[in-house]
Amino acid sequence: MNEFQALRNIRVVLCEPSHPGNIGAAARALKTMGLGRLVLVNPKAYPHPEAEARASGALDVLGNAQCFPDLDAALAGTLFVGGLSARRRDLTPVVTEVRAAAQEFVAAAGQGEVAIVFGTERSGLSIESLSRCHRLVRIPANPEYPSLNLAASVQIMAYELRCACLDGQVDGPQGSEERPASHEEVEGMIAHLEQTMRSTGFIHPERPGRLVQRMRRMFGRARPETEEIAILRGFFHSVLEQRER
Amino acid sequence: MNEFQALRNIRVVLCEPSHPGNIGAAARALKTMGLGRLVLVNPKAYPHPEAEARASGALDVLGNAQCFPDLDAALAGTLFVGGLSARRRDLTPVVTEVRAAAQEFVAAAGQGEVAIVFGTERSGLSIESLSRCHRLVRIPANPEYPSLNLAASVQIMAYELRCACLDGQVDGPQGSEERPASHEEVEGMIAHLEQTMRSTGFIHPERPGRLVQRMRRMFGRARPETEEIAILRGFFHSVLEQRER
Repeated sequence: MNEFQALRNIRVVLCEPSHPGNIGAAARALKTMGLGRLVLVNPKAYPHPEAEARASGALDVLGNAQCFPDLDAALAGTLFVGGLSARRRDLTPVVTEVRAAAQEFVAAAGQGEVAIVFGTERSGLSIESLSRCHRLVRIPANPEYPSLNLAASVQIMAYELRCACLDGQVDGPQGSEERPASHEEVEGMIAHLEQTMRSTGFIHPERPGRLVQRMRRMFGRARPETEEIAILRGFFHSVLEQRER
Repeated sequence: MNEFQALRNIRVVLCEPSHPGNIGAAARALKTMGLGRLVLVNPKAYPHPEAEARASGALDVLGNAQCFPDLDAALAGTLFVGGLSARRRDLTPVVTEVRAAAQEFVAAAGQGEVAIVFGTERSGLSIESLSRCHRLVRIPANPEYPSLNLAASVQIMAYELRCACLDGQVDGPQGSEERPASHEEVEGMIAHLEQTMRSTGFIHPERPGRLVQRMRRMFGRARPETEEIAILRGFFHSVLEQRER
């Protein structure tokens, strides 16, 4: 069982989506994060060419979407249900930030079926739909304009679900496959730089100042790779050689 | 100064977006997370009714978008540049996961202007555009289908920027009190380096190879300070002067 196995137990439910483009974009958002189960409750238009256009390479997720006439049917078999809504209501389930909620969903999905429910574009989740949810998921947003597009909300939720699966895994080293230079290689390059700076008269022999120290500091931040050291030394060599000619 | 102040110093740059709908959706994504500065490099269609439709309540962000003919113009005045690309290339800047990158961007935005660059829908960032970036930002995605919609990528990046502000205690970059060099200062230094490498014969005029690109990448990691740029340029000047004597 790999770390993303739990995502297979998570279905994403869109309640009465109005714009077919959003259905397609939601399918794409799910697939990019390794989710694949899209459920539609009473969609206004599905299937639809606009949904297919926006789904791009996620036509399989879109095509496999299940449709139900009401939310209860869509939630059949689930052990844990979360709902996304920007709306504040009087009586809501426990409100959880999306990052923490994702951890809960992934943990629950290790045990059984989980559903995450999204409301309509215009008015979010109804009070009745919210009443089916164990958690109300909140995406931290600009209070002056918290109105995320439906598929954008799905994207953030799906992204956090994937991150929750990845949590605990150790990140690899910083992306480069090159070999970082050794201490001696860096020191050799700095000595070569100093020699070159002296040869051109840039460093005054009696008032060397802190030029080399400054350069050492900068290269310390850069953490040069072996090949970069070779380039720098080749360049210094060409300066010194020209000087001797 | 509130915790979201840093977001005002962050511009989001879309390189040659093909679909006006994505421009509008990106504007909306930014505004929902409290960002407001959208920059377009050579957009295929802007302004456009489809962009306005997808922007929804973010018409102000869309309408205030700045357009430039090339990326360097769009990056003027920036101290720190990140780029998003799913593509793997030979020579890339340091790769950072979007969550960690957001922390870096917010910290850098406390000191000055930051740009986050997104490539085209079809092919992502060009090698030349990537060479302008200090960080390559990676969104953890399904390796079998990592193809996020452009506006969806913008949404995740913007969401993580907002979360990074909420995290509060962000480390300052590099522990330095010196002023980081601007994009123009670094570009000027790189051009000067190339000129100097050519003058000594280190770069063969007909087979320049990837030497300058390698150096650009190293300096991208180093993020030189203004005074370090001055030292390097003083050194290059001394090499060129000696050559003329």
